[in-house]
Amino acid sequence: MRVLSSELSGHINAEVHLEGWLHKKRLLGGLTFINLRDRKGIVQAVIKDKLEVDKLKGLQIGTILSVDGTVVSEQRAPGGVELHDVKLEVMVPVSDEPPIEIDKPLSHKPENLDTLFEHRSLGLRNLNEGKVFMVRSALLKLIREFLYSRDFMEIQTPKLVANAAEGGAEVFKLDYFGKSASLAQSPQLYKQVMVGVFERVFEIGPAFRAEPSATTRHVSEVTMLDIEMAFINSHEEVMDLIQDLLYTVLEKVWKEHGDDLTQLKAPEPVLKPKFPRYPMKQIHSMYQEATGTDMSTEIDLTPDEERWICDYAKEHDGCEAVFATELPRAKMKFYHMAKNEEVAQSADLLFRGLELATVPVREHRYDILIEQMKEAGIDPDDESFRFYLQAFKHGLPAHGGCGFGIDRLVEKTLGLGNIKEAILFPRDINRLSP
Amino acid sequence: MRVLSSELSGHINAEVHLEGWLHKKRLLGGLTFINLRDRKGIVQAVIKDKLEVDKLKGLQIGTILSVDGTVVSEQRAPGGVELHDVKLEVMVPVSDEPPIEIDKPLSHKPENLDTLFEHRSLGLRNLNEGKVFMVRSALLKLIREFLYSRDFMEIQTPKLVANAAEGGAEVFKLDYFGKSASLAQSPQLYKQVMVGVFERVFEIGPAFRAEPSATTRHVSEVTMLDIEMAFINSHEEVMDLIQDLLYTVLEKVWKEHGDDLTQLKAPEPVLKPKFPRYPMKQIHSMYQEATGTDMSTEIDLTPDEERWICDYAKEHDGCEAVFATELPRAKMKFYHMAKNEEVAQSADLLFRGLELATVPVREHRYDILIEQMKEAGIDPDDESFRFYLQAFKHGLPAHGGCGFGIDRLVEKTLGLGNIKEAILFPRDINRLSP
Repeated sequence: MRVLSSELSGHINAEVHLEGWLHKKRLLGGLTFINLRDRKGIVQAVIKDKLEVDKLKGLQIGTILSVDGTVVSEQRAPGGVELHDVKLEVMVPVSDEPPIEIDKPLSHKPENLDTLFEHRSLGLRNLNEGKVFMVRSALLKLIREFLYSRDFMEIQTPKLVANAAEGGAEVFKLDYFGKSASLAQSPQLYKQVMVGVFERVFEIGPAFRAEPSATTRHVSEVTMLDIEMAFINSHEEVMDLIQDLLYTVLEKVWKEHGDDLTQLKAPEPVLKPKFPRYPMKQIHSMYQEATGTDMSTEIDLTPDEERWICDYAKEHDGCEAVFATELPRAKMKFYHMAKNEEVAQSADLLFRGLELATVPVREHRYDILIEQMKEAGIDPDDESFRFYLQAFKHGLPAHGGCGFGIDRLVEKTLGLGNIKEAILFPRDINRLSP
Repeated sequence: MRVLSSELSGHINAEVHLEGWLHKKRLLGGLTFINLRDRKGIVQAVIKDKLEVDKLKGLQIGTILSVDGTVVSEQRAPGGVELHDVKLEVMVPVSDEPPIEIDKPLSHKPENLDTLFEHRSLGLRNLNEGKVFMVRSALLKLIREFLYSRDFMEIQTPKLVANAAEGGAEVFKLDYFGKSASLAQSPQLYKQVMVGVFERVFEIGPAFRAEPSATTRHVSEVTMLDIEMAFINSHEEVMDLIQDLLYTVLEKVWKEHGDDLTQLKAPEPVLKPKFPRYPMKQIHSMYQEATGTDMSTEIDLTPDEERWICDYAKEHDGCEAVFATELPRAKMKFYHMAKNEEVAQSADLLFRGLELATVPVREHRYDILIEQMKEAGIDPDDESFRFYLQAFKHGLPAHGGCGFGIDRLVEKTLGLGNIKEAILFPRDINRLSP
């Protein structure tokens, strides 16, 4: 019966059977020390018997071993235990040296990222590299648990669509049995329609953007959490939901995976249950006052302002997540609700200097929606909007929601520096494989 | 404070505030009865006051109302309660009649499916139609819970790939910044590589097949559960995992959603914890003995045989899920493990006459894998396989897994008859919208 490395402290002085990868091998004082890796971590085994040592001759890191031995307390060893009286069996021999170091920390410097991704299937065997994706998996689990607790249900909407919701140039096109199809940039239209049935829906899935620029915050395939909730009374309710989600999920991930996060040098969250909210205009003037630079003519916050307001809120409000509210109407999508001539009922959720989500109220009134489509240059009679408009014509309640970038959340939770490091196999303008 | 229809029995004789859709309206004995729908179901309200009745004048099904009234026990009403002394407020007026009946059962006859999908955003407001997707959401939740309990972690692999794993004609191609890309048919190569890091991984996501045929079991965009587990000792271990998953999930979904399933006329599962296992050759001869038809030259089970063996196992083994084992090597993919010259270490999981998953052991030995790629006409030096083969070269343990069709599972759990009915917005050769 296989025992995992994390379970060994419960087997002191007992004989156990382990299986895993040869992670490290060294000679010390006439003894051979090996580290064996399994999905829970590593364990050190001390091999004295020459017959056993010989079994490793010519074998490289990555070799898969079955190891029988006695568990001994040893404070200097990883996990506080060590295996003695070891018997080895080679399950899968590896005779080539790995092309990258697996035991040492990998470089995440911008100039080394390509190497990181080229050898992704091996690099992740580095304990800390793998942990990034364990934390990612944990975050997704916690997000779903939070949403179930708020009575949301999960949907899957199509990624092959006739027209992309947002339109624009950043759409991947393909031939679909002789018709022209697009890859969905977001489940926007589908999830809105579904609140007419289920009121509260979410989806976690891929979204595709033919993003022609190479930045630290953009890739062409992202994982999005899409949320939509109906029967809201105000914009506040939507912001509160997203705020509660981020607060709860980060609190729990630190509770349940604090050790991993500490080892990854993830910055501990500085959050209040209620995130500060600043109108965008005010942010512009606060930023101008602080830096002397006038950004008030920008329709968006600049990346510098996003970083600045998060730093400011961390210092003054004790919270590094902040809502930039009252976004200008010029930035508004046709399906957002206006507050007045100038301002939309929409806010950006910023966390640690990065926009995680735009959190708007949707326009649910059929006639006004049609007007806004026309203003945006979209033909409401276009066949591909029929199912969408039908839902409004026959009664959609007031609703709001957001698209929340999972990759960005992982990056910012861990402090990675580049969204691509939060993705197993990132895709950008230069990278379609592995 | 809004109360939901499902909570009313806890508020007998109290005044409550509800919000929802006008679902039905009728006059009876001088009174107006309305059904109000919310995400939990419907409630009947009796309106006597002419002032209140007048508010509904000219308004159609779908109108969104806020309803204040007193909860009264009424056995004849849905849910055993009724609202009296009602005050209405129109939140969103609807003046057009819906193009389809929303209160009556919708036709799922093959010839009516197109109408069903054309009006999907309204048709789902029919209580039973919506329940299909509540059950789907519940199944996904239970699947994840099962896999977490077995120490699996969740991954996301790219859907934009350089080469499709399986190749063949049924691949959607697109232009990717001047390069040729494919839409992933499955996460096959990526998930295999990841067992070298995490040992046990799963993914639930879309998979794309340019399926040129219109059948009841094929669509061009499916939701797949992909599972991969390492350090297995035998093929049995992989089959046991998938068997335990299906058994546990179906048992729990009936426990937690029995009422919904009964209302949807879902057939109650006939399952044993251990599914019967029949070698494919034996199924051919059993089928021949029973029907007189010889199918032994087919490399696959025919759809008739799949139905027959499930019926047979239901009757003789008390279990309508069955493994067809020892699949012929001719059907084997390059990444499967052979048992001998004739047979692969692979099995099909059949449930209620349909294949839900193929459950193979993978070939994890580098040299043999290379041989099998060449036999399959695949060039191992192709750049897009480099990351894949690298993981094997540097040690992948024995592993197996499956791709498990979520849409098929939903269809068979509910007894729907067509995979498309289990998908919110199905995609096939004729359908790219809504």
